[in-house]
Amino acid sequence: MQGEKIRTIHFGIGAVGSEVIRLLLERPDVEIVGAIDSHPAKAGKDLGDAAGIGRTVGITVSHDPEPVLKDVYADVVVHATGSHLTTVCPELLQIVAAEKNVISSCEELSYPWRHHPDIARTLDKRARETGVRILGTGVNPGFVMDTLPLVLTTACQHIKSIQVTRVVDVSTRRMQLQRKVGVGLSVQGFQQEANGSIGHVGLRESVSVMADTLGWRLDDIAETIEPVIAQERKKTEYFVVERGYVAGVRQTARGLMSGREVIRLELEMSLDAKDPRDVIVIDGKPPLKVAIAGGVQGDQATAAILANCVPAVANARSLIGLITMRDLPFVPYFRTKRQLREELVE
Amino acid sequence: MQGEKIRTIHFGIGAVGSEVIRLLLERPDVEIVGAIDSHPAKAGKDLGDAAGIGRTVGITVSHDPEPVLKDVYADVVVHATGSHLTTVCPELLQIVAAEKNVISSCEELSYPWRHHPDIARTLDKRARETGVRILGTGVNPGFVMDTLPLVLTTACQHIKSIQVTRVVDVSTRRMQLQRKVGVGLSVQGFQQEANGSIGHVGLRESVSVMADTLGWRLDDIAETIEPVIAQERKKTEYFVVERGYVAGVRQTARGLMSGREVIRLELEMSLDAKDPRDVIVIDGKPPLKVAIAGGVQGDQATAAILANCVPAVANARSLIGLITMRDLPFVPYFRTKRQLREELVE
Repeated sequence: MQGEKIRTIHFGIGAVGSEVIRLLLERPDVEIVGAIDSHPAKAGKDLGDAAGIGRTVGITVSHDPEPVLKDVYADVVVHATGSHLTTVCPELLQIVAAEKNVISSCEELSYPWRHHPDIARTLDKRARETGVRILGTGVNPGFVMDTLPLVLTTACQHIKSIQVTRVVDVSTRRMQLQRKVGVGLSVQGFQQEANGSIGHVGLRESVSVMADTLGWRLDDIAETIEPVIAQERKKTEYFVVERGYVAGVRQTARGLMSGREVIRLELEMSLDAKDPRDVIVIDGKPPLKVAIAGGVQGDQATAAILANCVPAVANARSLIGLITMRDLPFVPYFRTKRQLREELVE
Repeated sequence: MQGEKIRTIHFGIGAVGSEVIRLLLERPDVEIVGAIDSHPAKAGKDLGDAAGIGRTVGITVSHDPEPVLKDVYADVVVHATGSHLTTVCPELLQIVAAEKNVISSCEELSYPWRHHPDIARTLDKRARETGVRILGTGVNPGFVMDTLPLVLTTACQHIKSIQVTRVVDVSTRRMQLQRKVGVGLSVQGFQQEANGSIGHVGLRESVSVMADTLGWRLDDIAETIEPVIAQERKKTEYFVVERGYVAGVRQTARGLMSGREVIRLELEMSLDAKDPRDVIVIDGKPPLKVAIAGGVQGDQATAAILANCVPAVANARSLIGLITMRDLPFVPYFRTKRQLREELVE
């Protein structure tokens, strides 16, 4: 690679954070220079071990963000610690105070202007003061149910409505994801946890970013969440689900304008979900019906998107403040020379 | 609308140019301030009549570009006169000399760096000297077979190859398009005209922009063009095609790297083409198979893309020179307040 490498610090070495690290270690245009995780199983270890890379990388995971953020020179901090903005906001402010750009997997950060306007304004103001940019992204929110439909509207003269359906089979996915969608709970347990720890976070953010980008002034965003009930006994690597218990979650978010539904997002994440897929239907001129067979694999895609955004965010020097995917020139996968050589040798 | 309107001049009032004008007349954030077309049926007429809008708009179509480009203040010139860069280059240089940004439907302009490097360098240099930007775009090249696949790679960790298939039924499309794909010709006539006036222009540009954006250094781009032969007598509004004569065209362009096919574009445009569709297959991690049922309607989408790019190009102040779709933040359809009101009244 010509020129200086992009230097990254990794804040949060969980499933998503580790996969991003694995991807960036393969890129010769990126150099990982720091790592932060307060979990006892990670802190103090070599980053390679903490992230399960299979080799050491010579960087020790710090339990304390402060010294890493303050003393290590870096272009971008990849942040992956939580879904909820109220929880992660102090971490984001700490990164921004250290004058570093942020790419975060925090779902509510993908478009916080409508649902957390105070936090959004604070983050934007602080980022502008220190001259950095903050991006929240991932596969969903961040891509399948918002960015991709918006990109498709490029080809439209008029649009009446947008509908996106995403159906994910979580049978073989990681434990945290199965737990997050309620697998194994009783219906009563599900009801108690819905709108809390159970369910996908981000649908309303996807509705909001689409509406605001298209100039649609919504009266309201209506959300529903309900359990998918197992019709027979099911078993995963982590859970046994008796018949009548919860096999997953079904959620909708609808954007209403003058009483008319202009955006409808439907998401099912459950065991043995039938016909996993992503389908985007734009009722417009021309009409567009786009189907992704099998659906975009979520964990792989989220890590890819976060990693691919690293050069885009590092180089977007004309942007400061709290940004969204719609502000960036589109972010293609970039095959590095090293990957190229490796693939050709295969 | 708040703020100043974007002022546009329209150079070329054919089928595509007229549709863009019709769309922009509906947008309160755009003001059409000039029009150019040397065709005797257009020059000297009111733009509304020349473009078939159904009403006059108070602007006379000039046969001479010079006075309009020089004397009328405008932000963007929408240029739609031809597919080939050698033909339209003098027009583009004339626009750039008048210090106006350009959005053109010229297929070869979508990515001229590989196939017309001298013209590309000249256009880029002149545009930088006068501080303007030049964009070539449309549905294809410009969207379905290049920009959209590239946007999809955002979700990929690795990619081995990209294949795009576009099948268009031209039975009910405009005469120029049917003629362009060879409808009604004898096979011999088709062979004489192939690589000349017959066939779609832009496949190699789509291959090139994808390869260069992904960092794939191609050894070669291999192209084929062959007639689709009518198996029975067919009749359109404009042509009669006897059995054994030409019903359309089938073209491929393949990007080869170290002898391996990494990009494959297949395009069929013919009468009664079976199962019209756009299909994008990315062999990668995750793999992606994206199908657009019926395919993106070309004429509608090209006009939409040109029109939607007007604000994007007018406002992309940090970009100068010869740009491509990959340089712009993504360009969503933007529903204006007026359109909104009209649609709500429906």
